[in-house]
Amino acid sequence: MKIRTVGCWALACSAFLDAAHAELSLMPQPAHVVPGQGKLKIDQSFRIAFTGYREPRLDRAAARLAQHLEMKTGMPLSRELSADAATASLEISTAGVSSPVQKLGEDESYRLEVTPAHARLSAPNPLGVLRGMETFLQLVEADRDGFTAPALEIDDRPRFAWRGLMLDVARHWMPAGVVRRNIEAMSALKMNVFHWHLSDDQGFRVESRRFPKLHELGSDGHYYTQQEIHDVIEFARDRGIRVVPEFDMPGHTTAWFAAYPELASGPGPYAIERKWGVFDPAMDPTRDVVYQFLDTLIGEMAALFPDDYFHIGGDEVNGKEWDRNPRIQAFMREHGLRTNDALQGYFNTRLQPIVTGHGKKVIGWDEVFAPTLPKDIVVHSWRGQKSLADAARLGYMGILSAGYYLDHMKSAAFHYAVDPVEHESADLTAEQKARILGGEACMWSEYVTPESIDMRVWPRAAAIAERFWSAQDVKDVASMYRRLAVVSRDLEWRGVRHASSHHLMLARLADGHPVGPLATLSDVVEPVKEYSREEMRQYDSFTPLNRLVDATRPESDVARDFAALVGRALSGGDDKQSSRDQLRHWLTLWRDNDAALQPALQDSFLLQEVAPLSKDLAALGAAGLQALDYLSSGRKPDASWAATQRTLLDNWKKPRAELLILIAPEVERLVEAAARR
Amino acid sequence: MKIRTVGCWALACSAFLDAAHAELSLMPQPAHVVPGQGKLKIDQSFRIAFTGYREPRLDRAAARLAQHLEMKTGMPLSRELSADAATASLEISTAGVSSPVQKLGEDESYRLEVTPAHARLSAPNPLGVLRGMETFLQLVEADRDGFTAPALEIDDRPRFAWRGLMLDVARHWMPAGVVRRNIEAMSALKMNVFHWHLSDDQGFRVESRRFPKLHELGSDGHYYTQQEIHDVIEFARDRGIRVVPEFDMPGHTTAWFAAYPELASGPGPYAIERKWGVFDPAMDPTRDVVYQFLDTLIGEMAALFPDDYFHIGGDEVNGKEWDRNPRIQAFMREHGLRTNDALQGYFNTRLQPIVTGHGKKVIGWDEVFAPTLPKDIVVHSWRGQKSLADAARLGYMGILSAGYYLDHMKSAAFHYAVDPVEHESADLTAEQKARILGGEACMWSEYVTPESIDMRVWPRAAAIAERFWSAQDVKDVASMYRRLAVVSRDLEWRGVRHASSHHLMLARLADGHPVGPLATLSDVVEPVKEYSREEMRQYDSFTPLNRLVDATRPESDVARDFAALVGRALSGGDDKQSSRDQLRHWLTLWRDNDAALQPALQDSFLLQEVAPLSKDLAALGAAGLQALDYLSSGRKPDASWAATQRTLLDNWKKPRAELLILIAPEVERLVEAAARR
Repeated sequence: MKIRTVGCWALACSAFLDAAHAELSLMPQPAHVVPGQGKLKIDQSFRIAFTGYREPRLDRAAARLAQHLEMKTGMPLSRELSADAATASLEISTAGVSSPVQKLGEDESYRLEVTPAHARLSAPNPLGVLRGMETFLQLVEADRDGFTAPALEIDDRPRFAWRGLMLDVARHWMPAGVVRRNIEAMSALKMNVFHWHLSDDQGFRVESRRFPKLHELGSDGHYYTQQEIHDVIEFARDRGIRVVPEFDMPGHTTAWFAAYPELASGPGPYAIERKWGVFDPAMDPTRDVVYQFLDTLIGEMAALFPDDYFHIGGDEVNGKEWDRNPRIQAFMREHGLRTNDALQGYFNTRLQPIVTGHGKKVIGWDEVFAPTLPKDIVVHSWRGQKSLADAARLGYMGILSAGYYLDHMKSAAFHYAVDPVEHESADLTAEQKARILGGEACMWSEYVTPESIDMRVWPRAAAIAERFWSAQDVKDVASMYRRLAVVSRDLEWRGVRHASSHHLMLARLADGHPVGPLATLSDVVEPVKEYSREEMRQYDSFTPLNRLVDATRPESDVARDFAALVGRALSGGDDKQSSRDQLRHWLTLWRDNDAALQPALQDSFLLQEVAPLSKDLAALGAAGLQALDYLSSGRKPDASWAATQRTLLDNWKKPRAELLILIAPEVERLVEAAARR
Repeated sequence: MKIRTVGCWALACSAFLDAAHAELSLMPQPAHVVPGQGKLKIDQSFRIAFTGYREPRLDRAAARLAQHLEMKTGMPLSRELSADAATASLEISTAGVSSPVQKLGEDESYRLEVTPAHARLSAPNPLGVLRGMETFLQLVEADRDGFTAPALEIDDRPRFAWRGLMLDVARHWMPAGVVRRNIEAMSALKMNVFHWHLSDDQGFRVESRRFPKLHELGSDGHYYTQQEIHDVIEFARDRGIRVVPEFDMPGHTTAWFAAYPELASGPGPYAIERKWGVFDPAMDPTRDVVYQFLDTLIGEMAALFPDDYFHIGGDEVNGKEWDRNPRIQAFMREHGLRTNDALQGYFNTRLQPIVTGHGKKVIGWDEVFAPTLPKDIVVHSWRGQKSLADAARLGYMGILSAGYYLDHMKSAAFHYAVDPVEHESADLTAEQKARILGGEACMWSEYVTPESIDMRVWPRAAAIAERFWSAQDVKDVASMYRRLAVVSRDLEWRGVRHASSHHLMLARLADGHPVGPLATLSDVVEPVKEYSREEMRQYDSFTPLNRLVDATRPESDVARDFAALVGRALSGGDDKQSSRDQLRHWLTLWRDNDAALQPALQDSFLLQEVAPLSKDLAALGAAGLQALDYLSSGRKPDASWAATQRTLLDNWKKPRAELLILIAPEVERLVEAAARR
């Protein structure tokens, strides 16, 4: 097995790479692997045979597996199944049926045995088969003799039952094709819940036949027809993925009020919200007509979405419309509701039976949690692990999203370190821990478009997927990044556009100039973190997201590799000198990059904000080279040199054009090492 | 305006690029352009207004134009039309309707006026509007203040009425999505005929309801349903593109015989052909049942394909089945048909009235031409320009494909130099020349898959599109390549995958190793030309097309730029020294690339054949560097050095792994220049 890299086209990249690794490139890592002897050859005689239970979904999955193998190998393969399990390359043995509507906690285990003669995948039901097929696909790679899969035995099952990805399609509209290719990617990572954030202040994205003004007036024409919803659900079911819809209530509902202002607590008028943030409009919890409306709408949506769970949102109600409405204030006094939280609690106690009345279980963001609610609700924690732990202690189930916000532009390693049952949940009893069902990676869409969303979700979400599937002690960050690079390459074959979109967006910015220098800059920077962008510029739903910050990947692989190289160069190890040579290569590239980038910077308004950043990179390159010179020569720099560099370095660490230069801390290490001599 | 480059990610690429050019990036070049003063700003207030004739196709085209502008700029734009032509950014004024079924020779002219305040596109009918929209889109680019289009006036119309692209979907199956994205690309280049090569020895690719065994037994399940055909035709009509189907007869018909052996001239049995080449099976021209069958089938297909023209193929009948069939031989004697050509002529004289009887005009490959045929047939020349000129002299219309075979892997410049009315056609009278309607780029699919076909067609076909549209004297090759690079980038935004597929195929070959060194090698080589591949290895329809020759672009941009650099380095110009510095950079990269590529070469069976090629590149780099050293030092090498290099160079020019190192001739120039001192 080998290290894989993608998105690393410059020759210089190879400097960071070791030659070979003995590790399998599986992600998520399986529960149990026993290596075997030899390899199974995968050639054009490859055929699948089914034994045991059969259903059309399995046949379609077999055809997809052949298609994915074709993409991975470039070999045309037959779609014909083999009738003879003994001679087929891959025998798939399914013990029985899975639930007609996929259930939380259904068995997803599988066993995969590969020998030099044969592979056999067995599972209790089709869900396990789907998971095992992805493992088999990941095992295939080229060696000197052809494509092969290593002999081994794998017994695998997920650690958590709820392994989700949430996409917000309200703030920026995401057509069904975007949703489908992200669900396809989820399936490659064995995720099993697609959480579809379908309504918010900025849009109501589902066709309602009962209340058609919702999509007619609340979506700017950007909504899914019920047929599209149906097709996405079928697409997801084929991949063993549940679809949980979210209709966020009673706040985040401005788009509803653009159509039905009578649901609101304020006087209106209401229009679809164009800004980002937390807004005042909220449903009026005091009026029966609101609940009648919701009963009808939820009835319609409950029929459209077959999953057991129905997400009612419930986050970020600021209560200001309630405060301003005398009738609501009077209602609260009458009913002894002393706070807005209490009023929202009242809303939830009326909403919950409506949802359950339509055969669904309630899931909501952690604000909805109150110990008065029935024990079968699921608390979805976005505010922190404490609320999840608290709910679990009280007997409630929960899932974690705090720490998994992909829109925060944190590293894969950051998310990888967050575990649903650690930190505040570490002290829970085993019984309480069992109530923590898993988690969801969340992609809120203020700063993504259909063009950039793949790049914002993948490959980082794959690290979170491993956290949810693999054993708690699977925590080797270096291994994770190695395997993540493989996943990243493979996902482009599955139709995800995280790499190709990045390239196209850089090409747009270069606007005819060579893309290389812009890519060199983009490769060492990262977008600012968490909610910093909203403080730096006025954004709304019309703001073009076509700048370098939008084209740049959330995480700089180059900076991470550079940090490792600085570590080796400053250590006393054998590779100190070769590491220093490689450092010099990179620092020279960066020092000289500003000159190469100037023609593009001077031609396009989109790049003018980048000019200071590019100058900073050149200065960092120069400072690093000087530090290396001091380190190599053994001369000690005078005090003023170090002081000058430190002043500059403080500057470089501040964001420019909403970007951070991630190599700055490493150059600082070099400078400090030189100064210490 | 600027030079654009795409696919050139290494920093080193910038070495070849000049800073700025005054030329518009339009392709094909318009007939008349008058530059104006200033620029029209394109911002989020962009709106289109229609005046004059309206139809739904125009509304859809406006929505697509907005979408394409969004992709090009990254700015969200409204799809709402403006009611006020005077204040709209782009007024589109259409005088009248075009034909319900697009006709050969319909007016495609348009006029585009851009001022700093307003743009106005006017055309006699929607076809001209579609052409003018593409021109407008190409005018938009970023400058220091924003996105703009330059003020100007364009009056434009095509030189030739038939500007086609043929795709062979028989030898390798191409799903409808592949067809659609290639039609989309055609529309960007103002091409107007999609020639769909639907049947051949290796497949019959259309659902026939009259003879369902044709697609059931003749396609391996890879055929278009009639609904898919219908949708593709609508898709093409929306883009002003005719769809001309080809059913190749009486040869190239083995797949038909797999279903209906009674049509054949031999005893059978027949199976779908898996090899490439010219095969013996041919229809039996002597039997009435054959013509009855064809009458029914052509009737069905004539109703499915609305275009006036119906391509009957007619190429490459080797006559061997006819020679071997005593009954056919007796028939020939009876009817005075002394040669197989005469027998094919007989077939055509019976086929032609069947086709015209179903309301269609006949087009066929140049073998079908005989002076006995009616004058409204179109001769499609693949064998050379002479047959086209001969036919024109005799009063027949014709189109040219000789010189436009994209599967021959020739350069864009090669195809660009071929003109339908030059060479053997140059001496024709004006009246005879007018019979030459244009031409078609042809993509035969022996060596392409859905993965690689875009890379084989685009961007080179764009140079042919310019040949067909622009004035005969538009022949500046350097300008063509500059503008082709812009087109190449823009086509990826239109959904064509020529760049992204190249990267994915290289990544597959690198199989986890850094892609950079493999890309460096791929960038300086080209696949062997014309039909050389079939002499080098046994290919058939199952052969994987996953090797470096398949992943490598047909034309090496780097080698072309390197040749220019060698020219400058050997001249006495001002930039001699900087050119030599750049040469040294490239030669060093190549000399050192083999070492960087070794880990990948050693790991994968797919790359083992590439090892000698990589060694050759390293040797070429070293030889070039030595030559440069001699040139710089002024020392004369001894005779043995030059002799050694020449021996090696003869070797390097031979293909390896079906690839040619395109920089070898340029290194030879350096060696000879050094030896001459």
